[in-house]
Amino acid sequence: MKIVGIADTTFARYDMGKSAIDQLKSMSPEIKTVRYTVPGIKDLPAAARILFDKYDAEMVMALGMPGAKEIDKMSAHEAATGLITVQAILGKHILIVFVYEDEAKDESQLAWLADRRTREHAVNAYYLLFDQEFLQKNAGKGLRQGYGDVGPLR
Amino acid sequence: MKIVGIADTTFARYDMGKSAIDQLKSMSPEIKTVRYTVPGIKDLPAAARILFDKYDAEMVMALGMPGAKEIDKMSAHEAATGLITVQAILGKHILIVFVYEDEAKDESQLAWLADRRTREHAVNAYYLLFDQEFLQKNAGKGLRQGYGDVGPLR
Amino acid sequence: MKIVGIADTTFARYDMGKSAIDQLKSMSPEIKTVRYTVPGIKDLPAAARILFDKYDAEMVMALGMPGAKEIDKMSAHEAATGLITVQAILGKHILIVFVYEDEAKDESQLAWLADRRTREHAVNAYYLLFDQEFLQKNAGKGLRQGYGDVGPLR
Amino acid sequence: MKIVGIADTTFARYDMGKSAIDQLKSMSPEIKTVRYTVPGIKDLPAAARILFDKYDAEMVMALGMPGAKEIDKMSAHEAATGLITVQAILGKHILIVFVYEDEAKDESQLAWLADRRTREHAVNAYYLLFDQEFLQKNAGKGLRQGYGDVGPLR
Amino acid sequence: MKIVGIADTTFARYDMGKSAIDQLKSMSPEIKTVRYTVPGIKDLPAAARILFDKYDAEMVMALGMPGAKEIDKMSAHEAATGLITVQAILGKHILIVFVYEDEAKDESQLAWLADRRTREHAVNAYYLLFDQEFLQKNAGKGLRQGYGDVGPLR
Repeated sequence: MKIVGIADTTFARYDMGKSAIDQLKSMSPEIKTVRYTVPGIKDLPAAARILFDKYDAEMVMALGMPGAKEIDKMSAHEAATGLITVQAILGKHILIVFVYEDEAKDESQLAWLADRRTREHAVNAYYLLFDQEFLQKNAGKGLRQGYGDVGPLR
Repeated sequence: MKIVGIADTTFARYDMGKSAIDQLKSMSPEIKTVRYTVPGIKDLPAAARILFDKYDAEMVMALGMPGAKEIDKMSAHEAATGLITVQAILGKHILIVFVYEDEAKDESQLAWLADRRTREHAVNAYYLLFDQEFLQKNAGKGLRQGYGDVGPLR
Repeated sequence: MKIVGIADTTFARYDMGKSAIDQLKSMSPEIKTVRYTVPGIKDLPAAARILFDKYDAEMVMALGMPGAKEIDKMSAHEAATGLITVQAILGKHILIVFVYEDEAKDESQLAWLADRRTREHAVNAYYLLFDQEFLQKNAGKGLRQGYGDVGPLR
Repeated sequence: MKIVGIADTTFARYDMGKSAIDQLKSMSPEIKTVRYTVPGIKDLPAAARILFDKYDAEMVMALGMPGAKEIDKMSAHEAATGLITVQAILGKHILIVFVYEDEAKDESQLAWLADRRTREHAVNAYYLLFDQEFLQKNAGKGLRQGYGDVGPLR
Repeated sequence: MKIVGIADTTFARYDMGKSAIDQLKSMSPEIKTVRYTVPGIKDLPAAARILFDKYDAEMVMALGMPGAKEIDKMSAHEAATGLITVQAILGKHILIVFVYEDEAKDESQLAWLADRRTREHAVNAYYLLFDQEFLQKNAGKGLRQGYGDVGPLR
């Protein structure tokens, strides 16, 4: 049984945590999820560390939706830096799944993107836990999470 | 009894620490606050670490009001990065509550914003300490601290 | 007896270390200063750590005067980030006292500003060491170091 | 026998990992490679730490192809910062081999660049492991990985 | 006997390591240098840590010549941040000696600048190791490495 921590926020405008848990559960009975919700993305590094230290997570998905303003992009940068620092200290994966408000043309496409990107990162979490070989076979293939893959260079 | 550290500054132009303490006290008799005031926001990471190490805080609220100049925004970025580093090292929450001078149209609205954002983050501190389930129910709901919530995507 | 480390630079164009030591000595016979001079601001994080580790400093003042060019501002950012990292690791205060060349209209005002800002931060060092209550009474009062205080919001 | 960890991504549009392994194998029978593929460049710091901690790598090559958008450049910056943090903590080399989409005039040149830069960094890995003297002889020679060397100043 | 580590690069277009070693040797028979050459500036933090951990260096000089492009300046920022992180962790000095391609009007002036700045930082290394008092006497004197000193404010 592998525990995947799901850290998400009340700031986000889509329930990315639900998408992540739903996708992970559909992929393997050997994955158990533990959810931990925080107010905003800058709270995610502590959340991730707590999921590793107190909930025995083997991996964490950090889900967030930064706003469109300059200050929100700085918050996303600070949050990502902190999430990478936790990984550098512990040597454990935190999949950073951020969806920016200005990545879609309207709210309904943004909701679609948030769901899809989260699910595709959940699939990545599965492969990181159970099938490194599959990832190696896809190295350099130009895979993307959310919008379509761009594919390898021709 | 849970101890919440309140780190604030003499640089700020509103007594955010008072708002935080007042709000936390109104929410639960099980919360004890310890206040620690520093000159400016770049002193907050040390303050937070001191509140954890010497005052047994379980969580810290870091309160500040960066100025409007470019150099003030860089200070806010450096302070936030440091506050996130402390969280990454200790795995404890520091709620970063910053109010920027250019977020309001005049001084009286800025004072209102500083009070309200601080109180709403204090509410978040309460939920992080006592009611993770409530936060999970509100994941993805587009909640904001200060101005009105934007709500989930339609 | 409390030891305050004074880290300053030969790059600076004003002897801020002297101002700091003079001010601290005038405030309390219980403060002992240890000075450690380095070439430039990027050397201050190591200096601060050395003052804590080898000279038993309880607090450090890091004094510098970044140049006016873009690259100098980046150096100041890198130095400040490092000084905050040391604080995050050790939980001890380093008061970062930087005076930028473009903050004054001419050399004589810049010298005045360097002296005054340093002295006002030295006063802060005193309060951090001996009178936390005084700082709390001044929380949110819009205090500044160097030019005049802006005061609380009206 | 020296183990070199090869951390690469499925996001990249060229199989840089294959180039690295091929080049390293051609250089010495004393090098063993261990490959570890992750989704994107922000996952590389954890991958590198895992290669050091669990696979006994003595050195890691971190291979990635950031996209051309502003947000991709920020991701590259965050990934590089994390990879350098791991090096600062462990004192082990991670050769950061990033190829940016806008470094070439078309896809075929980009593929050529990705292969060549990776191979030239693999050669550097070899020298770091086995021939420090060779590197010292080439200090200050204006060597580049990918496009041609610029040579020493005249 | 004090060991000074000299970390330099094959990317640089001038043999700064040679200048550093030559200058240090001319200053004191009590200094022993250990050289460690890496490909580029982003490899310097690991190099510095290795010089401290495995070669017993008491201080390190990190020598590099970042290119003139935007991406090169980002590399320099990441390298400097990492070098400062190593100092923050260990409390040992790394003198960061970077010469930017666009700091000189032509190649011959750039070569002159690289030599001179390196030598002046080597002199600083000497004072940090043997004569703290000299540095204190020069605090606030507006000293520069490379081009002429600007002197104290008038």
